[in-house]
This record gives sequence, structure tokens and C-alpha cells, in this order.
Amino acid sequence: MSRFLMEVSLLQRMNSTPMTKAQLACVLESTLLKPETRTSDIHALCEEAVDLGLAGVCVPPYYVKEARRRVEGSPVRTISVAGFPLGYNHTAAKVEEIKKMCHDGVDEVDAVVHITAIRDGNWSYVENDLSAMVQIAHLKNTPIKLIIESGMLTPEEIRKVCQLAEQWQVDFIKTSTGMLAPGPDAQDIRYIKSQLTRPETRIKASAGIRTAEKALALIDAGADRIGTSSAAAILAGYPVA
Amino acid sequence: MSRFLMEVSLLQRMNSTPMTKAQLACVLESTLLKPETRTSDIHALCEEAVDLGLAGVCVPPYYVKEARRRVEGSPVRTISVAGFPLGYNHTAAKVEEIKKMCHDGVDEVDAVVHITAIRDGNWSYVENDLSAMVQIAHLKNTPIKLIIESGMLTPEEIRKVCQLAEQWQVDFIKTSTGMLAPGPDAQDIRYIKSQLTRPETRIKASAGIRTAEKALALIDAGADRIGTSSAAAILAGYPVA
Repeated sequence: MSRFLMEVSLLQRMNSTPMTKAQLACVLESTLLKPETRTSDIHALCEEAVDLGLAGVCVPPYYVKEARRRVEGSPVRTISVAGFPLGYNHTAAKVEEIKKMCHDGVDEVDAVVHITAIRDGNWSYVENDLSAMVQIAHLKNTPIKLIIESGMLTPEEIRKVCQLAEQWQVDFIKTSTGMLAPGPDAQDIRYIKSQLTRPETRIKASAGIRTAEKALALIDAGADRIGTSSAAAILAGYPVA
Repeated sequence: MSRFLMEVSLLQRMNSTPMTKAQLACVLESTLLKPETRTSDIHALCEEAVDLGLAGVCVPPYYVKEARRRVEGSPVRTISVAGFPLGYNHTAAKVEEIKKMCHDGVDEVDAVVHITAIRDGNWSYVENDLSAMVQIAHLKNTPIKLIIESGMLTPEEIRKVCQLAEQWQVDFIKTSTGMLAPGPDAQDIRYIKSQLTRPETRIKASAGIRTAEKALALIDAGADRIGTSSAAAILAGYPVA
């Protein structure tokens, strides 16, 4: 599809009042979680996020302090990950990781649910693990996103994990790590949305979101945030000023 | 290559007295680290490891207690992973993870080095992280393997990390997580071996080792242990009784 046709198709899909580019920027989290990331990469990431007015930067725990310093004074949030990406770390280790990143000044924690205990049907373990992570984050006044790796779960498992997440007042359901299973499509987001009953619970769609069209489709389906390593490309491809 | 020709080629490569099949089994660690692993998979893994007389089973932290119960009374070791696979977890979280798995009865810990700090050139951080992990494992009388993800490092970085590892008396250098970079070939093992000066420091080769031929080539090059998810296939393809 040509750039022009894509823009027309995007505009047609939008509601009568489409988001402005600045509004779209406000829901994008620029993500850089590769283990080979260097300080200079973090600097570039933060500079771009501030310039573009993004929602946040999502960085390895090791870089929380540095990212925090680099976005200081801007509305860009510093976000990091716990139990990432496999989620089967001991609960005490995940809790310790959250505690330390809060101490380092993180604004939001993206923590991986215990995927293994879910697949093993051990729901009491899943709940203990999840509630311990939520409690330590909230004790530190820090919102927490629960990464459920929806591409690896059955609809019934997604239903149950959403229920537990709401019971423990998780702030966001985040779909994917970007390392284990494919990211969500609009239908996946609609399904997660249909499982949520608290108006406070938001959705972060992540993994494989590289175009404005895909981002818009997920937002349209109910995503409140978009995690992406292509924030600049998404905004460049967005036809509204 | 036909099975027959492969066996001839294998026999030709061996020293005058080739290992017996039982000796080869003794250096294989059967690995199952996928997040979707269930209890029944762990039972099958452990049963096979006991039957084949393997060195150990390498399982997620969540399954240490279960694996330990299943190999009880056999020489098969229960092994688990810390800071796996990205290595950039906060040091306190990695230490907590090691503490908990020792409490759960693990026989050996495979811990990921701080790859990110290495790539960032922050060697004092690498040393603090590494020494904290070694000290907690040794305090618990548990041998520790340092996973260096050699496929992601330069020769100079490998040299430096081997030097630090020996300084802190790491028990094994383990080459790879199997999730980030390609596994080692014989030349990589020879290079790591050439960097080690303490006779006590051993080498575990891991990632992408699926045949007897590959395993033997790595052992021949200096590997003391082989981490693999194909232990049965390797032994089935080994031509010596």
C-alpha cells in the first residue's frame, strides 16, 4: 500500500475527531530492552522521547537512574521491567527487583506474571506472585503493569489472570514481552478489554507494533498505551498534525 | 552424512581410548528452561536423566523442589538459573534468586553475568555483580557457573570476564543462555580454555548442541560439561558402548 493510500485508510478508520499527533505521542512508550544496550543508546532514546513528547521510555533495570536523569523536567516517564522476560524467577527475586528500581526512581514497573505457574495450573502460586509484586510497587507509590504474555495463554487463562489482576488492583494489563510470543492484534485487545470490569484498569499493547496503522487499530480496540521500539516511525507515518 | 559414516568420522576423531557411553552421559546436563514447561515435563526430564545417568537437569527456579524430589537418591544434580536469560536484573534480585534456589535444594547455580554492564564497559559493576553472586552461592556451599553469553562478547571482553571469574573462584564458565546468541564451536571453547589459569575452573558448553559429533568436538576442545535439550539423541548417536 502506498503511503498516501495508507494515510487515507487510516483517516477513514478514525472517529470523527481523530487524535492529534501530540495525543498519539502521549500514549507511546519507547522501548529498548536488549541486553547489549549501552549508555549512549539510552541517551539517544531519552532525547528522542523528550523531543517527541512520548509517554515514557522502557529500559533495563541497570539504566533506570541514567534514563531518569535524562528525562528529568519533562513529562516522559521512566519505566523498567521485573522478572523479564520469562517471569519464572522466584517471587522474592521479583519483589527485590521492583524494590530496587523504585529506589532508583522508576515511575512505572512492567512486571511479568508467573507464566510457568499459569501453564502449570498453579493459580494460588500465580496469585501469591502477582499480589506480592503489586503490593511492593504500590507501597512505593508506583503504578504496575502486569505483562501476561497473552500470545502464550489460552482465552480461559487470560480471563483468569485478568480477574486476579483486577482483584489486586494492577494498574495496567500489558500484553507481551516481545521476546516469547507474537504481539496482540485488535481482536486480542478487545478480548482483554471485555474481561476487565474496573474502569481504572488500563491496557498496554506491546510487541510487533511498528506502524501508525497498527498502533491506531490497537488503540481503537481499547489499548491505552502502546509499547514500541518504532515510536518515531509511527509518528512519522501518522497523517494528522 | 549417513549414520554409519558419521560414526566412523566420530571414532576417527577420538583419542586412542574413547569415552564410554556412560562417561559421555556423565557430562551431559539435560536442559528445559522454556516458560511454558509443566510439572509433567519436569517429571519426564528427570526420569530420563536418571535412566541415562546424566550429570544433571537444568530447570526453572519454580521447579527446583520438584526436580530435586524426582532425582533424589540418584547422582543426577538439580541445577537452576539466576538472572536468566538477560543478566541485567538488579544484583540484589539475582542474589535473592540464588538464595532461594539454594534453600529449595539446588545442587548447582547457573547465573548470567551482567552482559549489559560488560557491553557498557562498566567493569567495576560487572565485578560487583559477579562477586555478589559467587559469594552467596559459595556461602550456601553450592557451585556456581557463570553464563557469559560468549556469542555476544568480543574476545577481549571474554578474556576480561574469565579473569574476573577466576579471581572470584567461579566453578564453571558456561558459554551461553541458548536464547540470545549462537552457541559455541570448538574454537570458542579453545579460546575460553586458553584464558583460564586455575585448574579448578571448568567449562560448560551450551546452546545448539544436538548431536554426538558436536558434543564430542566441544569436549575435545576443552568442555567439561555439555548443556543440551537433546541428551537422549546425543547418546543414541554415540557409537561407543
